[in-house]
Amino acid sequence: MTERESRRPLRLGVAGLGTVGAGVVRLLDQHRDRLGAALGRTIEVAAVSARDRRRNRGIDLSACRWFDDAVELACAPDIDVFVELIGGEEGVARRSVEAALTAGRPVITANKALLAHHGTALARLAESTGAALKFEAAIAGGIPIVKALRESLLGNQIRRLYGILNGTCNYILTAMGSDGRAFEDVLAEAQQLGYAEADPSFDIGGFDAAHKLALLTSIAFGTEVAFDDVYVEGIEKITAADIEAADELGYRIKLLGVALETESGIEQRVHPAMVAKTSAISGVGGVTNCVAVEGDYVGDMMLVGPGAGAGPTASSVISDVIDVVRGDRTPAFVTPADRLRPYERARMRAHEGGYYLRMSVFDRPGAFAAIATRMAGEEVSLSSIVQRPVSPLPSGAPAASSEGEAGAPTPVVLITHETTEDAIRRALAAIEADGHIDGQPQMIRIERL
Amino acid sequence: MTERESRRPLRLGVAGLGTVGAGVVRLLDQHRDRLGAALGRTIEVAAVSARDRRRNRGIDLSACRWFDDAVELACAPDIDVFVELIGGEEGVARRSVEAALTAGRPVITANKALLAHHGTALARLAESTGAALKFEAAIAGGIPIVKALRESLLGNQIRRLYGILNGTCNYILTAMGSDGRAFEDVLAEAQQLGYAEADPSFDIGGFDAAHKLALLTSIAFGTEVAFDDVYVEGIEKITAADIEAADELGYRIKLLGVALETESGIEQRVHPAMVAKTSAISGVGGVTNCVAVEGDYVGDMMLVGPGAGAGPTASSVISDVIDVVRGDRTPAFVTPADRLRPYERARMRAHEGGYYLRMSVFDRPGAFAAIATRMAGEEVSLSSIVQRPVSPLPSGAPAASSEGEAGAPTPVVLITHETTEDAIRRALAAIEADGHIDGQPQMIRIERL
Repeated sequence: MTERESRRPLRLGVAGLGTVGAGVVRLLDQHRDRLGAALGRTIEVAAVSARDRRRNRGIDLSACRWFDDAVELACAPDIDVFVELIGGEEGVARRSVEAALTAGRPVITANKALLAHHGTALARLAESTGAALKFEAAIAGGIPIVKALRESLLGNQIRRLYGILNGTCNYILTAMGSDGRAFEDVLAEAQQLGYAEADPSFDIGGFDAAHKLALLTSIAFGTEVAFDDVYVEGIEKITAADIEAADELGYRIKLLGVALETESGIEQRVHPAMVAKTSAISGVGGVTNCVAVEGDYVGDMMLVGPGAGAGPTASSVISDVIDVVRGDRTPAFVTPADRLRPYERARMRAHEGGYYLRMSVFDRPGAFAAIATRMAGEEVSLSSIVQRPVSPLPSGAPAASSEGEAGAPTPVVLITHETTEDAIRRALAAIEADGHIDGQPQMIRIERL
Repeated sequence: MTERESRRPLRLGVAGLGTVGAGVVRLLDQHRDRLGAALGRTIEVAAVSARDRRRNRGIDLSACRWFDDAVELACAPDIDVFVELIGGEEGVARRSVEAALTAGRPVITANKALLAHHGTALARLAESTGAALKFEAAIAGGIPIVKALRESLLGNQIRRLYGILNGTCNYILTAMGSDGRAFEDVLAEAQQLGYAEADPSFDIGGFDAAHKLALLTSIAFGTEVAFDDVYVEGIEKITAADIEAADELGYRIKLLGVALETESGIEQRVHPAMVAKTSAISGVGGVTNCVAVEGDYVGDMMLVGPGAGAGPTASSVISDVIDVVRGDRTPAFVTPADRLRPYERARMRAHEGGYYLRMSVFDRPGAFAAIATRMAGEEVSLSSIVQRPVSPLPSGAPAASSEGEAGAPTPVVLITHETTEDAIRRALAAIEADGHIDGQPQMIRIERL
């Protein structure tokens, strides 16, 4: 032990001192001795960089060198590891990471956007100089899914991987489910609570989840990072009526990221999905994230935990630091970058779980028959049809004529058996063209978990 | 890469060819190329040992040297890693592991009994010769909880750790809950299905879970392995009436292993516990295991997966092999063995969640008052009292007199607020001594999760 303990401290250069950066500084300050004893080497934040030097972050930076320029910090000769917590796929984040890797210096980052866009190239650069590139904190906050895939489950061929990868969306869907409120109301509340950004489109549009999914896909399936090929659909169109119908049918609606190997390549998709209430993932509520992995030997495994926040993200950054202290040299995506397979987008395939369809059908003779005929024409078979009564109008709204209007639309929910995405899309297009429905139909995939 | 790939294969010596040993051979056979490419080194089973050389295990052992004696295998000069899958805390398992470690050879084991009884001494031996001692497969089957604690969550001070660590018990309790059957019936079924041993006392008595808990405690809290100090209570006394009452009160009953830091030391306990149906752990059913960890930075994290079986356990063994290939040198319990704190058993402390008590009270004047007075005398306050009607007798059983018998016992369920274990035990002893109840009272801790 004496030899190990005599090693000089590992010096981190931390760029970006937002909540996560401050969390990392705080964690290392609080747990310095315990970590030093466990690792045989002290970890210290030797230098930092951020936009505003004067801002009070509630942390002691007196022992740290200050850099105005993160790129300069990344190349500073007296740091051992560059920790990038700036964020953003371009600009100083990208330049500083590239500078550190070019210099052969280990990089730890929480920057999912950067890796989703430039992951393969950065991994190649890292391997060319022998530098580690690590990113546990970029995916699902405190959940150690990167290490689980890179190390614990490496003995498995992964068949499918899926998860709740965005806390904002899960918070909104959970809240809509528990009290029947509309999407817009809950979103406004989430913004007030700090669970959603002022411009929430990146989260609720599914793009944040798609960034993370693209990275998980690369690790699990050995393919180049292919964020642009992820099929992405957000939760903006999910209504209280969908949530209610799902509940009655025994489902909850979650924004899922799903990656799986198919005969024609790797399927990557992010979209709202109906999951059975009896599934473990249906119980993951609020801002909590989870990732489930199906491996040929391990079977079904699920990791559940906080997907964001200063503490959980700092915990994951430190996990990467510990790997660097221990001399981990594994390629960023496990498979060496030069051997990652080019990503081949899977053909639109059979969707095992079937589909939930909700449409407003004009109440006139022949409308249902026309819809059923269009479904049959695409060989889509239906497992259930629910004609739902029109919800009572909120008090204060003008009452509809009690006789009803011939041809006024009635909400109808259809559940299909397994079919292909193509068939469903063709059937829905034909139904729309027939003119028997009001507005666009809602379509939500049912995920068999 | 050329240098790494030119490394000769890592040669495993596998002792014990039961389902897990055969699973390891099968996994390495199936995934040899993929693992070799990812690790830059091929892994091969070079030698094996088991009791019966002739038995057909459905695996190809033609390329493996055979040893009748596992100790000889452990010391064989042409293997790099000794994999002990024999089981048992003494005998050849212990002798072979000691022999390998003494020779400075890495040991991978799934043997929780061995480690629960001799873990600290074996860790010390391993560290004295510089050999790795790894045991991911010993705890919760395929769930990578050892690596999560040793590496991913090492930046955290762990506050509490708990889990469902025995699949047999969880299967029995889940089945009792879903169809109201008696413990004995479900146990018999579990034995038929192979989920319970012919002699099930080790599992249902809580000892298997206690083995695993003792190891987790050591890693999480840096204490010497102290299996003998785990408070252990099994599920034998849980009745259909308890399950039913729990359900009505919003709880499920699970056999939990719990370890937490208290003011007076580390509390380690395995016992049936009432967990709220709203908790994530309440949804972990059947033979599935889970481990939840509360860390000061990461917050609440839970890993859920298969707790046993050839595939999941082989997956964990291979995870350890991968660590050895990658040169992991971390001490067995993270903290070097010489610095593990002596285990100090915590004083009986306040139990935050309170208690569920069920007793058969003789229906006579003053009985309830006497019970309430005994509770009050120990300052135990009650949050609810449910006097339950006597369940209808199963058809075929002799009917009780319809007039009822003065003094015939009535089932009563009490839920207490937070109190100490001592106070509950004194109150129950006094109530028993008063003679107002029939038989022994049932007491189940309510766990606040």
